[in-house]
Amino acid sequence: MKSIGVLTSGGDAPGMNAAIRSVVRSCIYHDVKVFGIYYGYQGLINGNIEELTIGSVGDIIQKGGTMLYSSRSEEFKTPEGQKKAIEQLTNYGIEGLVVIGGDGSFKGATKLTEQGFPCIGVPGTIDNDIPGTDYTIGFDTALNTVIQAVDKIRDTATSHERIYTIEVMGRDAGDLALWAGLAGGAESILIPERESNMDEVLEKIQRGHERGKRHSIIMVAEGVGSAVYYAEQIQEKLNLSTRVTVLGHTQRGGSPTANDRVLASRLGAAAVDLLLSNKGGLMVGIENNQVVHHDIIEALQKEHKVDEGLYQLSNQLSI
Amino acid sequence: MKSIGVLTSGGDAPGMNAAIRSVVRSCIYHDVKVFGIYYGYQGLINGNIEELTIGSVGDIIQKGGTMLYSSRSEEFKTPEGQKKAIEQLTNYGIEGLVVIGGDGSFKGATKLTEQGFPCIGVPGTIDNDIPGTDYTIGFDTALNTVIQAVDKIRDTATSHERIYTIEVMGRDAGDLALWAGLAGGAESILIPERESNMDEVLEKIQRGHERGKRHSIIMVAEGVGSAVYYAEQIQEKLNLSTRVTVLGHTQRGGSPTANDRVLASRLGAAAVDLLLSNKGGLMVGIENNQVVHHDIIEALQKEHKVDEGLYQLSNQLSI
Amino acid sequence: MKSIGVLTSGGDAPGMNAAIRSVVRSCIYHDVKVFGIYYGYQGLINGNIEELTIGSVGDIIQKGGTMLYSSRSEEFKTPEGQKKAIEQLTNYGIEGLVVIGGDGSFKGATKLTEQGFPCIGVPGTIDNDIPGTDYTIGFDTALNTVIQAVDKIRDTATSHERIYTIEVMGRDAGDLALWAGLAGGAESILIPERESNMDEVLEKIQRGHERGKRHSIIMVAEGVGSAVYYAEQIQEKLNLSTRVTVLGHTQRGGSPTANDRVLASRLGAAAVDLLLSNKGGLMVGIENNQVVHHDIIEALQKEHKVDEGLYQLSNQLSI
Amino acid sequence: MKSIGVLTSGGDAPGMNAAIRSVVRSCIYHDVKVFGIYYGYQGLINGNIEELTIGSVGDIIQKGGTMLYSSRSEEFKTPEGQKKAIEQLTNYGIEGLVVIGGDGSFKGATKLTEQGFPCIGVPGTIDNDIPGTDYTIGFDTALNTVIQAVDKIRDTATSHERIYTIEVMGRDAGDLALWAGLAGGAESILIPERESNMDEVLEKIQRGHERGKRHSIIMVAEGVGSAVYYAEQIQEKLNLSTRVTVLGHTQRGGSPTANDRVLASRLGAAAVDLLLSNKGGLMVGIENNQVVHHDIIEALQKEHKVDEGLYQLSNQLSI
Repeated sequence: MKSIGVLTSGGDAPGMNAAIRSVVRSCIYHDVKVFGIYYGYQGLINGNIEELTIGSVGDIIQKGGTMLYSSRSEEFKTPEGQKKAIEQLTNYGIEGLVVIGGDGSFKGATKLTEQGFPCIGVPGTIDNDIPGTDYTIGFDTALNTVIQAVDKIRDTATSHERIYTIEVMGRDAGDLALWAGLAGGAESILIPERESNMDEVLEKIQRGHERGKRHSIIMVAEGVGSAVYYAEQIQEKLNLSTRVTVLGHTQRGGSPTANDRVLASRLGAAAVDLLLSNKGGLMVGIENNQVVHHDIIEALQKEHKVDEGLYQLSNQLSI
Repeated sequence: MKSIGVLTSGGDAPGMNAAIRSVVRSCIYHDVKVFGIYYGYQGLINGNIEELTIGSVGDIIQKGGTMLYSSRSEEFKTPEGQKKAIEQLTNYGIEGLVVIGGDGSFKGATKLTEQGFPCIGVPGTIDNDIPGTDYTIGFDTALNTVIQAVDKIRDTATSHERIYTIEVMGRDAGDLALWAGLAGGAESILIPERESNMDEVLEKIQRGHERGKRHSIIMVAEGVGSAVYYAEQIQEKLNLSTRVTVLGHTQRGGSPTANDRVLASRLGAAAVDLLLSNKGGLMVGIENNQVVHHDIIEALQKEHKVDEGLYQLSNQLSI
Repeated sequence: MKSIGVLTSGGDAPGMNAAIRSVVRSCIYHDVKVFGIYYGYQGLINGNIEELTIGSVGDIIQKGGTMLYSSRSEEFKTPEGQKKAIEQLTNYGIEGLVVIGGDGSFKGATKLTEQGFPCIGVPGTIDNDIPGTDYTIGFDTALNTVIQAVDKIRDTATSHERIYTIEVMGRDAGDLALWAGLAGGAESILIPERESNMDEVLEKIQRGHERGKRHSIIMVAEGVGSAVYYAEQIQEKLNLSTRVTVLGHTQRGGSPTANDRVLASRLGAAAVDLLLSNKGGLMVGIENNQVVHHDIIEALQKEHKVDEGLYQLSNQLSI
Repeated sequence: MKSIGVLTSGGDAPGMNAAIRSVVRSCIYHDVKVFGIYYGYQGLINGNIEELTIGSVGDIIQKGGTMLYSSRSEEFKTPEGQKKAIEQLTNYGIEGLVVIGGDGSFKGATKLTEQGFPCIGVPGTIDNDIPGTDYTIGFDTALNTVIQAVDKIRDTATSHERIYTIEVMGRDAGDLALWAGLAGGAESILIPERESNMDEVLEKIQRGHERGKRHSIIMVAEGVGSAVYYAEQIQEKLNLSTRVTVLGHTQRGGSPTANDRVLASRLGAAAVDLLLSNKGGLMVGIENNQVVHHDIIEALQKEHKVDEGLYQLSNQLSI
């Protein structure tokens, strides 16, 4: 393989730039040409493609967002779109593709794989919901963003007896809420993977209230409903003052943490190694602290699970 | 004067601890006893009072919240409550009081002043809405908290064309939204001091959209309505994708900035100096970069104004 | 076991408080008494011991340092000291001990173990140099502190062509320098586990210089010598302007990252679980993403190794 | 005036990008062409000049460093260099110049002024040592960087009784050390504007030591000597353990604070306003919270002074 392309797709995640840098420099280290494809699959169809050099990825390891931009593409979901994409790749002499993104992006990669084009998926999403990897690029950064917000709320929380509900990202996946709840010392955590038991939440708040606790923090993954809704429920049923925070897209930004940069560097290099060994149709990930790879189609059919042990631990420590 | 009390009241603000430290150490430096009154005016009525030493305020300059806690007190609004408060002060031999807080706290201080008890108000609130001072303690920290959130949103904003509405604190005062909007490069800023012109906001977004701008940030002070409402308006009228962030009480927390610590240190010491010169019924502040004081009753009758020049500048720079 | 003690010892590390909280709340959750021992082994000898409650560890999960303080104890190294320590434990009815600290602290724990007192070691040190665990509590936080410093240097580095040497902690262990070098995009990394090849460093700088690179960052673990020394070497031999940063004890402080808090929470709870199953003489750790335990004496005889793969990767990506 | 140039020169400072943005957008707002001159005066001589648009300065308000880069130029100090510079300006049709930088950069601006070319100086340096302005762009950011480091050291400082010396920038100016010392709660502050009284420093440490204080922080401006030297003195004379931190160029980087961004926005716009009123030979600044301007040559002849009151206050609060 003499030429590799790289694109980012779907929602961006901190550390994507570090992954791009790793792909680019690993290619150059191995004397392979590397092309950046801008604006995801739509940019691939449109030919927004440019050769990258060592300097192209200088001083980006620390930057949030993605220098290749991203977009969602309806056209790529059609066979015609996919055909155009492969034509562009062929035009540029690109023989293998690294796709950095979440689960929608991986589905795109399987389309190219099915057409015989070698693709490697690199998991980049703050949701940590990709099967086949213990952690996704961006998760650690988002997690730290959330707990910094929790810490600030905690500072002020002693002033008045109040309940704080904090809504974090996670439409289908509760990892961010769960880890942030544990690391932030939240009293209750509501995630889509578990039926939320509002009575239990209310009871715990009530118990804390009676013990003289001055504040409680309820972490809410957006997938179970809005933090505003839960605040209203608490206010109504317990007659306690509540305040709402919705972190929104702040969770997608920020300079990546060390962990996300190291993970991105390892996975980007591993993706290039696989392509250079003429492998495709795979995703890379980290499992049990080792870089691994899996068949991308099979991986997508599995289900990501939240760590039940952490959920129990969180309950144990927030008594 | 041989003995001084200090309390914090109302909503807390980062830097209150630095102000307390300054009051305490300034007293001790001048060989004056100093008492901490916990839980604001209610704690004063209840006698939650304790003598403080150099060590009591060790390692607090950097901490958010207030080590003296705060509370709102209905009882203190009554003549009986005020009488009890003065009795407690007398019991402890406290001859002068420093009140750190916002405009409600200052009203409390005027009650004591009217009864002849020497009080000095130190402005501590993130809202920056106290007449008689250019800046309040906590404003600078809250401002930096907001712009760090804006910066994170900006990181991710390039991925997709979108409008972001960000709701910040400020029920009656637009300073936080205005300064954060200017410092964060927001496209539009909606504050209670100016009638919000939704048509203008929409037109500006539309103009940016046509020029190929990939994102716009709309800063909304809570006093003009919810960020959710504005996002819905934009989505409906312009058919552009919007995302909402509500920073909530994260804005009240965090380690105070250098500026807030220096300001708090200066104002705390100045309050003690005034009491030691047997002055009361005053508030301290910073105007034109100098520590000043004003009659606290007169100051409260004035109106805090937003800086019109900054508003114009923000418009000029976000074309 | 009806009563457990916990102490921190040696150099402190961010996340120790989260570990203490986890030990304390896990004990209470299991209806076991828990005692905090202040000032490490010396405090144990002196009887600086106090029962802890749920509230004792409220609002500490986010705090740097250790609420139990630490100290080094010569007396504890003697059989008499150890005897006194065990007497104190017996006096308080403490039947098992959790020791949070680095490798010196673990040696202390083996002394108690040898005397038949059940001890569990929890690895807390920024150095990441404890065998038997992939990560130590505090490492992730220190790492992020270092890369934030590197990022700031990078911001300014474009102004002038210069070489920056940055000295980080690590007398015998290069993990911090290695990971920070990789995550910070350093050009060269000097660690005690590898003979530093100054010629190679100089050659790489020279090559970058010729290619028009405006700055290079050299990460130096303190174990290989001072950053000042290396800066002088570079200045002298290449006649390039150099600047030195010595991060010092800033690396030990700061609010722990999410990862360190989660790790500390898991390991603290695991230590309590082991004691409650009447096990002692062990250390807990995380290996391959699973909580594990090892014989503490055997673990200490092993050697911690740096990850050779990361070193190679760093070289590959900093071409 | 139909066309304006802007350059940054000397050591960079956080907020320079916000100032550039303000200059560029203010020009465009007033329908005036604006040119970016890269690499300072040397780039001006060499013709590294490019017209800038609204988009050129998009998403830079939050970035450290300077997008126009900087450099020091020996050539510009000669009459020939200055002549070439003016020729380049004339070639590009540039009629007025905004120079953002410190005191060396202002000297360059006076050279052009003496040759009749309209120049406005905008003070950008972390040293806060420019007469004619209360604050320079970058000072607030550097200050916050320093106190964050102090806070981290403080976290860990309770573990062992120790003295920490911290060296900050400031060859001739002590503002950064003074403000950071006050805001960081340092026990002693050594600055070039005051003869450092080592005996006093030692005595204060000794006094604290006897009172049971567990740590002292000594803030050292580089202009009075190295933090290593002071640490050795303390260790030798008091036999107390000391640790050294040298913050180095971390102080020049980082995302600018809100204050620096607002200041930069105001001063950049003010510089353009002056040029558009056909004024030159001036510097802009902020005094008593108002934007002001002064004759640049006269301003440079004045001496910047540290605030004696803050020094006293710091002593009073660190008893």
